[in-house]
Amino acid sequence: MTLQCTTSAGHWKIVVWDEEGFQGQWHEFSTECPSMLEFGFETVRSLKVLSGAWVGFEHAGFQGQQYVLEQGEYPRWDAWSGNMACPAVRLTSFRPMACANHRDSRLTIFEQENFLGTKGELSDDYPSLQAMGWDSNEVGSFRVQSGAWVCSQFPGYRGFQYMLESDHHSGDYKHFREWGSHAQTVQVQSVRRIQQ
Amino acid sequence: MTLQCTTSAGHWKIVVWDEEGFQGQWHEFSTECPSMLEFGFETVRSLKVLSGAWVGFEHAGFQGQQYVLEQGEYPRWDAWSGNMACPAVRLTSFRPMACANHRDSRLTIFEQENFLGTKGELSDDYPSLQAMGWDSNEVGSFRVQSGAWVCSQFPGYRGFQYMLESDHHSGDYKHFREWGSHAQTVQVQSVRRIQQ
Repeated sequence: MTLQCTTSAGHWKIVVWDEEGFQGQWHEFSTECPSMLEFGFETVRSLKVLSGAWVGFEHAGFQGQQYVLEQGEYPRWDAWSGNMACPAVRLTSFRPMACANHRDSRLTIFEQENFLGTKGELSDDYPSLQAMGWDSNEVGSFRVQSGAWVCSQFPGYRGFQYMLESDHHSGDYKHFREWGSHAQTVQVQSVRRIQQ
Repeated sequence: MTLQCTTSAGHWKIVVWDEEGFQGQWHEFSTECPSMLEFGFETVRSLKVLSGAWVGFEHAGFQGQQYVLEQGEYPRWDAWSGNMACPAVRLTSFRPMACANHRDSRLTIFEQENFLGTKGELSDDYPSLQAMGWDSNEVGSFRVQSGAWVCSQFPGYRGFQYMLESDHHSGDYKHFREWGSHAQTVQVQSVRRIQQ
Protein backbone atom coordinates (compact mmCIF):
# COMPACT_ATOMS: atom_id res chain seq x y z
CA MET A 1 0.00 0.00 0.00
CA THR A 2 1.06 3.59 -0.48
CA LEU A 3 0.59 5.52 2.74
CA GLN A 4 -1.75 8.45 2.38
CA CYS A 5 -3.71 10.77 4.56
CA THR A 6 -6.69 8.80 5.86
CA THR A 7 -8.28 11.19 8.32
CA SER A 8 -10.95 13.52 7.07
CA ALA A 9 -10.83 17.05 8.42
CA GLY A 10 -13.03 17.80 11.38
CA HIS A 11 -12.51 14.61 13.36
CA TRP A 12 -10.34 15.06 16.43
CA LYS A 13 -9.89 12.73 19.37
CA ILE A 14 -7.30 12.76 22.16
CA VAL A 15 -7.02 10.78 25.42
CA VAL A 16 -4.91 12.17 28.28
CA TRP A 17 -3.69 10.52 31.52
CA ASP A 18 -2.39 12.01 34.76
CA GLU A 19 0.37 9.39 35.06
CA GLU A 20 3.12 8.27 32.66
CA GLY A 21 2.62 5.15 30.57
CA PHE A 22 -1.15 5.64 30.11
CA GLN A 23 -1.85 5.00 33.80
CA GLY A 24 -4.04 6.70 36.38
CA GLN A 25 -7.03 8.92 35.65
CA TRP A 26 -7.90 9.61 32.02
CA HIS A 27 -10.22 11.79 29.95
CA GLU A 28 -11.12 11.78 26.28
CA PHE A 29 -11.68 14.99 24.28
CA SER A 30 -12.86 15.84 20.78
CA THR A 31 -12.73 19.62 21.24
CA GLU A 32 -10.42 22.06 22.95
CA CYS A 33 -9.57 21.83 26.65
CA PRO A 34 -8.52 25.20 28.15
CA SER A 35 -7.43 23.73 31.50
CA MET A 36 -6.80 20.21 32.79
CA LEU A 37 -6.55 21.75 36.27
CA GLU A 38 -10.35 21.78 36.27
CA PHE A 39 -10.28 18.00 35.89
CA GLY A 40 -7.96 17.65 38.88
CA PHE A 41 -4.84 17.10 36.75
CA GLU A 42 -1.68 18.88 37.89
CA THR A 43 -0.37 18.20 34.38
CA VAL A 44 -0.90 15.66 31.59
CA ARG A 45 1.79 12.96 31.92
CA SER A 46 0.91 10.72 28.95
CA LEU A 47 -1.48 10.88 25.99
CA LYS A 48 -2.67 9.21 22.81
CA VAL A 49 -3.83 11.17 19.77
CA LEU A 50 -6.43 8.95 18.10
CA SER A 51 -7.45 11.35 15.35
CA GLY A 52 -6.51 14.74 13.92
CA ALA A 53 -3.67 17.07 14.81
CA TRP A 54 -3.53 18.91 18.14
CA VAL A 55 -1.39 21.53 19.81
CA GLY A 56 -0.61 21.21 23.51
CA PHE A 57 0.35 24.15 25.76
CA GLU A 58 2.41 24.44 28.92
CA HIS A 59 -0.11 26.61 30.80
CA ALA A 60 -3.89 26.83 31.03
CA GLY A 61 -5.62 29.07 28.50
CA PHE A 62 -3.33 28.00 25.62
CA GLN A 63 -0.29 29.86 26.96
CA GLY A 64 3.42 29.11 27.28
CA GLN A 65 5.42 26.48 25.43
CA GLN A 66 3.71 24.76 22.49
CA TYR A 67 3.88 21.08 21.52
CA VAL A 68 2.71 19.61 18.22
CA LEU A 69 0.69 16.43 18.84
CA GLU A 70 0.01 14.24 15.81
CA GLN A 71 -1.63 10.82 15.74
CA GLY A 72 0.21 8.28 17.88
CA GLU A 73 1.28 7.38 21.40
CA TYR A 74 3.14 9.66 23.82
CA PRO A 75 3.99 7.67 26.98
CA ARG A 76 5.89 10.49 28.73
CA TRP A 77 6.76 14.19 28.44
CA ASP A 78 9.90 13.74 26.30
CA ALA A 79 7.75 12.30 23.52
CA TRP A 80 6.22 15.75 22.94
CA SER A 81 8.61 18.33 24.43
CA GLY A 82 11.49 19.67 22.41
CA ASN A 83 12.93 21.82 25.16
CA MET A 84 15.05 19.68 27.41
CA ALA A 85 16.62 22.53 29.38
CA CYS A 86 13.53 22.45 31.58
CA PRO A 87 12.41 18.81 31.79
CA ALA A 88 9.67 19.30 34.37
CA VAL A 89 7.60 21.40 31.96
CA ARG A 90 3.82 20.95 32.07
CA LEU A 91 1.11 20.23 29.51
CA THR A 92 -2.07 21.81 30.82
CA SER A 93 -4.25 22.83 27.83
CA PHE A 94 -4.70 21.70 24.23
CA ARG A 95 -6.80 22.34 21.15
CA PRO A 96 -7.35 20.88 17.66
CA MET A 97 -5.47 22.25 14.65
CA ALA A 98 -6.89 22.54 11.14
CA CYS A 99 -4.41 21.24 8.54
CA ALA A 100 -4.49 21.44 4.78
CA ASN A 101 -3.90 18.48 2.52
CA HIS A 102 -0.18 17.80 2.68
CA ARG A 103 0.35 18.66 -0.99
CA ASP A 104 -1.50 21.96 -0.68
CA SER A 105 0.41 23.44 2.28
CA ARG A 106 2.12 26.77 1.51
CA LEU A 107 4.31 29.00 3.70
CA THR A 108 6.51 32.05 3.03
CA ILE A 109 9.45 32.85 5.32
CA PHE A 110 11.04 36.30 5.50
CA GLU A 111 14.50 37.35 6.60
CA GLN A 112 13.19 40.31 8.65
CA GLU A 113 10.12 41.12 10.72
CA ASN A 114 7.07 42.70 9.03
CA PHE A 115 7.54 40.54 5.90
CA LEU A 116 10.70 42.32 4.78
CA GLY A 117 14.01 41.19 3.32
CA THR A 118 14.84 38.01 1.43
CA LYS A 119 11.97 35.53 1.31
CA GLY A 120 11.59 31.80 0.73
CA GLU A 121 8.53 29.87 -0.52
CA LEU A 122 7.93 26.49 1.17
CA SER A 123 5.61 23.65 0.22
CA ASP A 124 7.62 20.74 1.66
CA ASP A 125 9.30 19.78 4.95
CA TYR A 126 12.69 21.34 5.80
CA PRO A 127 14.63 19.64 8.62
CA SER A 128 17.46 22.06 7.84
CA LEU A 129 16.58 25.41 6.28
CA GLN A 130 20.28 26.14 5.85
CA ALA A 131 20.81 22.93 3.85
CA MET A 132 18.12 24.14 1.48
CA GLY A 133 19.72 27.52 0.82
CA TRP A 134 18.42 29.72 3.65
CA ASP A 135 21.42 31.80 4.64
CA SER A 136 20.73 32.29 8.34
CA ASN A 137 19.73 30.43 11.51
CA GLU A 138 16.91 32.94 12.01
CA VAL A 139 13.55 33.79 10.44
CA GLY A 140 12.11 37.29 10.91
CA SER A 141 8.46 36.69 9.98
CA PHE A 142 6.10 34.11 8.46
CA ARG A 143 3.05 34.22 6.21
CA VAL A 144 0.99 31.00 6.08
CA GLN A 145 -0.94 30.74 2.82
CA SER A 146 -2.32 27.28 3.52
CA GLY A 147 -2.22 24.58 6.18
CA ALA A 148 -0.64 24.27 9.60
CA TRP A 149 3.13 24.24 10.12
CA VAL A 150 5.54 23.82 13.00
CA CYS A 151 8.88 25.60 13.11
CA SER A 152 11.67 24.64 15.50
CA GLN A 153 14.69 26.27 17.06
CA PHE A 154 17.20 23.58 16.02
CA PRO A 155 17.66 21.42 12.90
CA GLY A 156 15.73 18.14 12.80
CA TYR A 157 12.68 19.68 14.54
CA ARG A 158 14.33 19.95 17.99
CA GLY A 159 14.26 22.68 20.64
CA PHE A 160 11.38 25.12 21.10
CA GLN A 161 8.42 24.56 18.76
CA TYR A 162 6.07 27.21 17.40
CA MET A 163 2.80 26.56 15.54
CA LEU A 164 1.97 28.55 12.41
CA GLU A 165 -1.63 28.20 11.20
CA SER A 166 -3.45 29.70 8.24
CA ASP A 167 -6.59 30.13 10.34
CA HIS A 168 -4.85 31.98 13.20
CA HIS A 169 -3.59 35.60 12.95
CA SER A 170 -4.96 35.42 9.35
CA GLY A 171 -1.84 33.35 8.79
CA ASP A 172 0.39 36.39 9.40
CA TYR A 173 3.16 36.19 12.00
CA LYS A 174 5.01 39.44 11.56
CA HIS A 175 7.21 39.34 14.69
CA PHE A 176 8.55 36.49 16.84
CA ARG A 177 6.28 37.45 19.74
CA GLU A 178 3.33 36.56 17.51
CA TRP A 179 4.40 32.95 17.08
CA GLY A 180 4.32 32.12 20.77
CA SER A 181 4.10 33.77 24.15
CA HIS A 182 7.21 31.81 25.16
CA ALA A 183 9.28 32.81 22.11
CA GLN A 184 12.48 34.52 23.20
CA THR A 185 14.41 34.15 19.98
CA VAL A 186 14.06 34.40 16.22
CA GLN A 187 16.24 31.31 15.89
CA VAL A 188 14.40 28.92 13.56
CA GLN A 189 16.37 26.19 11.84
CA SER A 190 13.68 23.72 10.73
CA VAL A 191 10.09 23.96 9.45
CA ARG A 192 7.57 21.29 8.47
CA ARG A 193 3.94 20.72 7.62
CA ILE A 194 1.72 19.25 10.34
CA GLN A 195 0.01 15.99 9.48
CA GLN A 196 -3.65 15.44 10.20
CA MET B 1 13.36 32.32 -4.02
CA THR B 2 12.21 28.72 -3.82
CA LEU B 3 14.35 26.79 -1.37
CA GLN B 4 16.11 23.84 -2.93
CA CYS B 5 18.93 21.50 -2.13
CA THR B 6 22.14 23.45 -2.69
CA THR B 7 24.80 21.05 -1.47
CA SER B 8 26.38 18.74 -3.98
CA ALA B 9 27.07 15.21 -2.79
CA GLY B 10 30.53 14.48 -1.51
CA HIS B 11 31.14 17.70 0.43
CA TRP B 12 30.97 17.29 4.18
CA LYS B 13 32.17 19.62 6.89
CA ILE B 14 31.53 19.61 10.66
CA VAL B 15 33.06 21.58 13.53
CA VAL B 16 32.85 20.20 17.09
CA TRP B 17 33.60 21.85 20.47
CA ASP B 18 34.27 20.36 23.90
CA GLU B 19 32.11 22.99 25.65
CA GLU B 20 28.51 24.09 25.14
CA GLY B 21 27.78 27.22 23.10
CA PHE B 22 30.70 26.75 20.67
CA GLN B 23 33.29 27.37 23.39
CA GLY B 24 36.55 25.68 24.33
CA GLN B 25 38.65 23.47 22.10
CA TRP B 26 37.41 22.77 18.59
CA HIS B 27 38.23 20.58 15.58
CA GLU B 28 36.97 20.59 12.00
CA PHE B 29 36.35 17.37 10.05
CA SER B 30 35.44 16.51 6.46
CA THR B 31 35.60 12.72 6.91
CA GLU B 32 34.59 10.29 9.63
CA CYS B 33 35.89 10.52 13.20
CA PRO B 34 35.84 7.16 15.02
CA SER B 35 36.74 8.64 18.43
CA MET B 36 36.91 12.15 19.85
CA LEU B 37 38.59 10.62 22.92
CA GLU B 38 41.78 10.60 20.85
CA PHE B 39 41.50 14.38 20.57
CA GLY B 40 41.20 14.71 24.34
CA PHE B 41 37.42 15.28 24.26
CA GLU B 42 35.40 13.49 26.92
CA THR B 43 32.39 14.17 24.70
CA VAL B 44 31.29 16.70 22.06
CA ARG B 45 29.23 19.41 23.79
CA SER B 46 28.33 21.66 20.82
CA LEU B 47 28.72 21.49 17.04
CA LYS B 48 27.99 23.14 13.71
CA VAL B 49 27.33 21.18 10.53
CA LEU B 50 28.59 23.40 7.71
CA SER B 51 27.95 20.99 4.85
CA GLY B 52 26.41 17.58 4.17
CA ALA B 53 24.49 15.26 6.48
CA TRP B 54 26.19 13.42 9.34
CA VAL B 55 25.31 10.80 11.92
CA GLY B 56 26.67 11.13 15.46
CA PHE B 57 27.09 8.20 17.86
CA GLU B 58 27.08 7.91 21.63
CA HIS B 59 30.21 5.75 21.83
CA ALA B 60 33.53 5.53 19.96
CA GLY B 61 33.58 3.29 16.90
CA PHE B 62 30.10 4.37 15.74
CA GLN B 63 28.27 2.49 18.52
CA GLY B 64 25.36 3.23 20.82
CA GLN B 65 22.67 5.86 20.34
CA GLN B 66 22.49 7.58 16.95
CA TYR B 67 21.82 11.26 16.22
CA VAL B 68 21.00 12.72 12.82
CA LEU B 69 23.02 15.92 12.23
CA GLU B 70 21.94 18.10 9.32
CA GLN B 71 23.28 21.52 8.35
CA GLY B 72 22.90 24.07 11.15
CA GLU B 73 23.91 24.96 14.69
CA TYR B 74 23.67 22.69 17.74
CA PRO B 75 24.69 24.69 20.85
CA ARG B 76 24.05 21.87 23.36
CA TRP B 77 23.18 18.17 23.60
CA ASP B 78 19.40 18.61 23.51
CA ALA B 79 19.67 20.05 19.99
CA TRP B 80 20.63 16.59 18.67
CA SER B 81 19.47 14.01 21.23
CA GLY B 82 15.95 12.65 21.10
CA ASN B 83 16.25 10.52 24.22
CA MET B 84 15.68 12.66 27.26
CA ALA B 85 15.44 9.82 29.77
CA CYS B 86 19.23 9.89 29.95
CA PRO B 87 20.26 13.54 29.49
CA ALA B 88 23.98 13.07 30.14
CA VAL B 89 24.39 10.97 27.01
CA ARG B 90 27.64 11.42 25.02
CA LEU B 91 28.48 12.13 21.41
CA THR B 92 31.87 10.55 20.77
CA SER B 93 32.08 9.53 17.10
CA PHE B 94 30.49 10.65 13.82
CA ARG B 95 30.57 10.00 10.10
CA PRO B 96 29.14 11.47 6.87
CA MET B 97 25.94 10.09 5.37
CA ALA B 98 25.20 9.78 1.66
CA CYS B 99 21.72 11.09 0.83
CA ALA B 100 19.73 10.87 -2.39
CA ASN B 101 18.01 13.82 -3.97
CA HIS B 102 14.98 14.50 -1.81
CA ARG B 103 12.52 13.63 -4.59
CA ASP B 104 14.27 10.32 -5.34
CA SER B 105 14.26 8.85 -1.82
CA ARG B 106 12.41 5.53 -1.52
CA LEU B 107 11.76 3.31 1.51
CA THR B 108 9.56 0.25 2.13
CA ILE B 109 8.34 -0.55 5.65
CA PHE B 110 7.10 -4.01 6.68
CA GLU B 111 4.79 -5.06 9.49
CA GLN B 112 7.01 -8.00 10.52
CA GLU B 113 10.72 -8.77 10.59
CA ASN B 114 12.37 -10.36 7.51
CA PHE B 115 10.26 -8.20 5.14
CA LEU B 116 7.00 -10.03 5.91
CA GLY B 117 3.42 -8.90 6.48
CA THR B 118 1.70 -5.71 5.35
CA LYS B 119 4.04 -3.22 3.66
CA GLY B 120 4.04 0.51 2.97
CA GLU B 121 5.92 2.42 0.26
CA LEU B 122 7.34 5.81 1.37
CA SER B 123 8.78 8.64 -0.69
CA ASP B 124 7.87 11.56 1.59
CA ASP B 125 8.26 12.53 5.26
CA TYR B 126 5.87 10.98 7.81
CA PRO B 127 5.78 12.69 11.24
CA SER B 128 2.97 10.26 12.13
CA LEU B 129 2.86 6.91 10.34
CA GLN B 130 -0.47 6.18 12.01
CA ALA B 131 -2.00 9.38 10.62
CA MET B 132 -1.03 8.17 7.15
CA GLY B 133 -2.74 4.79 7.47
CA TRP B 134 -0.11 2.59 9.14
CA ASP B 135 -2.07 0.50 11.61
CA SER B 136 0.52 0.03 14.35
CA ASN B 137 3.09 1.89 16.46
CA GLU B 138 5.72 -0.63 15.33
CA VAL B 139 7.68 -1.47 12.18
CA GLY B 140 9.15 -4.97 11.81
CA SER B 141 11.71 -4.38 9.04
CA PHE B 142 12.84 -1.78 6.48
CA ARG B 143 14.18 -1.92 2.94
CA VAL B 144 15.85 1.31 1.70
CA GLN B 145 15.69 1.56 -2.08
CA SER B 146 17.24 5.02 -2.25
CA GLY B 147 18.59 7.73 0.02
CA ALA B 148 19.13 8.04 3.76
CA TRP B 149 16.24 8.07 6.24
CA VAL B 150 15.79 8.51 9.98
CA CYS B 151 13.04 6.72 11.89
CA SER B 152 12.01 7.70 15.42
CA GLN B 153 10.32 6.06 18.35
CA PHE B 154 7.64 8.74 18.86
CA PRO B 155 5.56 10.90 16.48
CA GLY B 156 7.12 14.17 15.32
CA TYR B 157 10.63 12.65 15.14
CA ARG B 158 11.12 12.38 18.92
CA GLY B 159 12.63 9.67 21.12
CA PHE B 160 15.29 7.21 19.96
CA GLN B 161 16.51 7.79 16.39
CA TYR B 162 17.75 5.13 13.96
CA MET B 163 19.48 5.79 10.62
CA LEU B 164 18.47 3.79 7.54
CA GLU B 165 20.83 4.12 4.56
CA SER B 166 20.75 2.59 1.10
CA ASP B 167 24.53 2.19 1.17
CA HIS B 168 24.61 0.33 4.51
CA HIS B 169 23.45 -3.30 4.96
CA SER B 170 22.63 -3.11 1.21
CA GLY B 171 19.69 -1.02 2.44
CA ASP B 172 18.16 -4.09 4.16
CA TYR B 173 17.24 -3.86 7.85
CA LYS B 174 15.44 -7.11 8.52
CA HIS B 175 15.34 -7.01 12.34
CA PHE B 176 15.36 -4.16 14.84
CA ARG B 177 18.85 -5.12 16.04
CA GLU B 178 20.11 -4.23 12.56
CA TRP B 179 18.98 -0.62 12.80
CA GLY B 180 21.04 0.20 15.86
CA SER B 181 23.08 -1.46 18.57
CA HIS B 182 21.02 0.49 21.11
CA ALA B 183 17.62 -0.49 19.68
CA GLN B 184 15.52 -2.19 22.30
CA THR B 185 12.15 -1.86 20.66
CA VAL B 186 10.40 -2.09 17.31
CA GLN B 187 8.39 1.00 18.23
CA VAL B 188 8.66 3.40 15.28
CA GLN B 189 6.05 6.15 14.90
CA SER B 190 7.72 8.61 12.49
CA VAL B 191 10.03 8.36 9.48
CA ARG B 192 11.60 11.03 7.27
CA ARG B 193 14.20 11.58 4.58
CA ILE B 194 17.53 13.06 5.66
CA GLN B 195 18.52 16.34 4.00
CA GLN B 196 21.95 16.90 2.62
